[in-house]
Amino acid sequence: MEKGITRSHEVETSNTITIKGILSLLMQSIDERVGRSVISLGMGDPSAYSCFHTTPVAQEAVVDALQCDKFNGYSPTVGLPQTRRAVAEFLSRDLPYKLSADDVFITCGCTQSIDVAVAMLAHPGANILLPRPGFPIYELSASFRHLEVRHFDLLPEKGWEVDLNAVEALADENTVALVIINPGNPCGNVYSYQHLKRIAETAEKLKILVIADEVYGHLAFGHNPFIPMGVFGSIVPVLTLGSLSKRWIVPGWRLGWFVISDPVGTFRKPKTVERIKKYFDLLGGPATFIQAALPRIIEETDEEFFKKTIRTLKQASDICYDKIREISCITCPHKPEGSMAVMLNLELLEDICDDSDFCFKLAKEESVIVLPGTAVGLKNWIRVTFAADPALLEEALERVKIFCQRHASRALGA
Amino acid sequence: MEKGITRSHEVETSNTITIKGILSLLMQSIDERVGRSVISLGMGDPSAYSCFHTTPVAQEAVVDALQCDKFNGYSPTVGLPQTRRAVAEFLSRDLPYKLSADDVFITCGCTQSIDVAVAMLAHPGANILLPRPGFPIYELSASFRHLEVRHFDLLPEKGWEVDLNAVEALADENTVALVIINPGNPCGNVYSYQHLKRIAETAEKLKILVIADEVYGHLAFGHNPFIPMGVFGSIVPVLTLGSLSKRWIVPGWRLGWFVISDPVGTFRKPKTVERIKKYFDLLGGPATFIQAALPRIIEETDEEFFKKTIRTLKQASDICYDKIREISCITCPHKPEGSMAVMLNLELLEDICDDSDFCFKLAKEESVIVLPGTAVGLKNWIRVTFAADPALLEEALERVKIFCQRHASRALGA
Repeated sequence: MEKGITRSHEVETSNTITIKGILSLLMQSIDERVGRSVISLGMGDPSAYSCFHTTPVAQEAVVDALQCDKFNGYSPTVGLPQTRRAVAEFLSRDLPYKLSADDVFITCGCTQSIDVAVAMLAHPGANILLPRPGFPIYELSASFRHLEVRHFDLLPEKGWEVDLNAVEALADENTVALVIINPGNPCGNVYSYQHLKRIAETAEKLKILVIADEVYGHLAFGHNPFIPMGVFGSIVPVLTLGSLSKRWIVPGWRLGWFVISDPVGTFRKPKTVERIKKYFDLLGGPATFIQAALPRIIEETDEEFFKKTIRTLKQASDICYDKIREISCITCPHKPEGSMAVMLNLELLEDICDDSDFCFKLAKEESVIVLPGTAVGLKNWIRVTFAADPALLEEALERVKIFCQRHASRALGA
Repeated sequence: MEKGITRSHEVETSNTITIKGILSLLMQSIDERVGRSVISLGMGDPSAYSCFHTTPVAQEAVVDALQCDKFNGYSPTVGLPQTRRAVAEFLSRDLPYKLSADDVFITCGCTQSIDVAVAMLAHPGANILLPRPGFPIYELSASFRHLEVRHFDLLPEKGWEVDLNAVEALADENTVALVIINPGNPCGNVYSYQHLKRIAETAEKLKILVIADEVYGHLAFGHNPFIPMGVFGSIVPVLTLGSLSKRWIVPGWRLGWFVISDPVGTFRKPKTVERIKKYFDLLGGPATFIQAALPRIIEETDEEFFKKTIRTLKQASDICYDKIREISCITCPHKPEGSMAVMLNLELLEDICDDSDFCFKLAKEESVIVLPGTAVGLKNWIRVTFAADPALLEEALERVKIFCQRHASRALGA
């Protein structure tokens, strides 16, 4: 009956896949008769594991901010001044220039930061360059905000570096930005200074912005240290997206940031900032008392807490890498160096037709959940989140191994 | 330099005003040399006043949910199941049918609920009918989501009822919905059962939805009790928007809901729900632990807490109404019966050219902030938020009286 409602709006999002949507379907396909504990290596949220517990300081800071009774009211929609300032100072530690509080906008987590970036850049005819594999919230946001998407490849043989030739070939006068996710999700790579600089120079040449998704910022444990893209903000304006979620292991707190890393002021024009501010008036914004806790969280979190997380992640990624080498039909082209996930290449078995089939059969037969690569843009790959309890991770990958062996022998028997 | 960035995007939002934007300008025009405390009657956030303090139960529930360590991780993007269920049960108490948890989507406060409604209904060529005076986040959202806005009047002489003739005249085949805000912001009115039913019947006749903004739900203290629009959900599908913000006096907690009150299932088609779910994947969502606290907040909040709020609001609205009657150049066409605000008509004085001029001069000369009616769609009116400490409210209105007297005598002297 309702006009505009029963009409087909579905076109815009019918091709978009969400990770949570697929994981939920995989969960539903678990066969309870198998009678085994379900182990999910599907999502970048290790908060349920005791080895990935947030620091008590963070929790105390939030409780104190709530109990002091000063933060039950609205905050400015762009964020509390002290919260913006704290994020600016925190990020400036790793930059050759100082961000100001005005460069920082507080969001409900990095997901909202992504949507802000996409919505602010969308205009009729515009397009954005996204990595493949990538993080599908970008595609979903672009579809809702009417921004055309063009994909460039990340190159597994080059440590998942950006195919800059592809970027140059894809960009035209309507291209507004390219997106990098570093440390990489879903690939677990960490870009070198030199590669980031080349990305900046390419973007500058093409006159496009760089959106740097650094939600996994500082979670690097391999050869390359984490370098924020904002380091190259003088070459090209960078929109830096981040949050407390991963480094503090509190994804459910929904506290992120959208930052204009643009020391030259190319992007940060008064009218642009005015428009961004109005857009924030539309957003719910995160809870005021959580915002109020952020300065203390940043100030008082012990370096040892971060080191422990890095050690645990490195240990987990080693387990993952070593265990995968035992599985003949799965290969890891690049050992993870950061973030919480890795992309693995599937060699298909006789009775498994693609990555989705693999994941659904694995869920059903072994009660183990991993993400089909299709969900992040690469068919016949899988994404494994290794941020899990080491014993469970090992157990899960042992089940994957047995699963692969069983299906390989079935194929031989056929 | 950046493409798509320096181009004019401003068109879409250049005409939109935000309440927070204007209040911030008014704050800046306070003259500190006047040396008086600033009293703001500008915003619907009384959380700073001790007489409008939230209940300890709510705070305890949030602290406990945080400290139990189960809610640091992601929630489903549509909200925790127990939170959705608790809102469904809470709202169903006042409905002739039962909402299910699936009808409820948890948002970062009612602002985000508004944007969800607008974004979900927007499509090329569509239009939406908004009240004048109204709440400008609707206009802002419509401008960002590319939905044409058409205004119908609320009629001060009829207790700010909807001009249903205007609604019928404005609607066409591209109209998707009409918005009502009840209890009323900015007018402080509460619609009768009969009027709400007539709105439902009109919407049904026009084949449009009703968006019922009930962020001030239950805050009624006059003749008419609060009736949720969802009562008429069998006549016409209703999108019910609400939050904890006003009734629990915690606007900074950012916990709201977007509810499909549609017992017949006219609107709630699988594809529509699928699209809404995908949209929620884009939103940050409120903090998981605050969501987790909601069932207990609803369950354990004492009826006396609500009664006290109502008593305090009634007392404040009486002070406001009585005090305004002492001021010759301001008239209140309809005594407030609900919400936290009232619209007052200005008779212009010689040296005051319009409502904005009035508000800026008042801020400068008397350190009192009230909202120009222009910000909510009515020129030469003002909106006064009476949800304030009674003594401060009286003091502020006394200053308004002196201000008016001074300017009236200046006019006489001229």
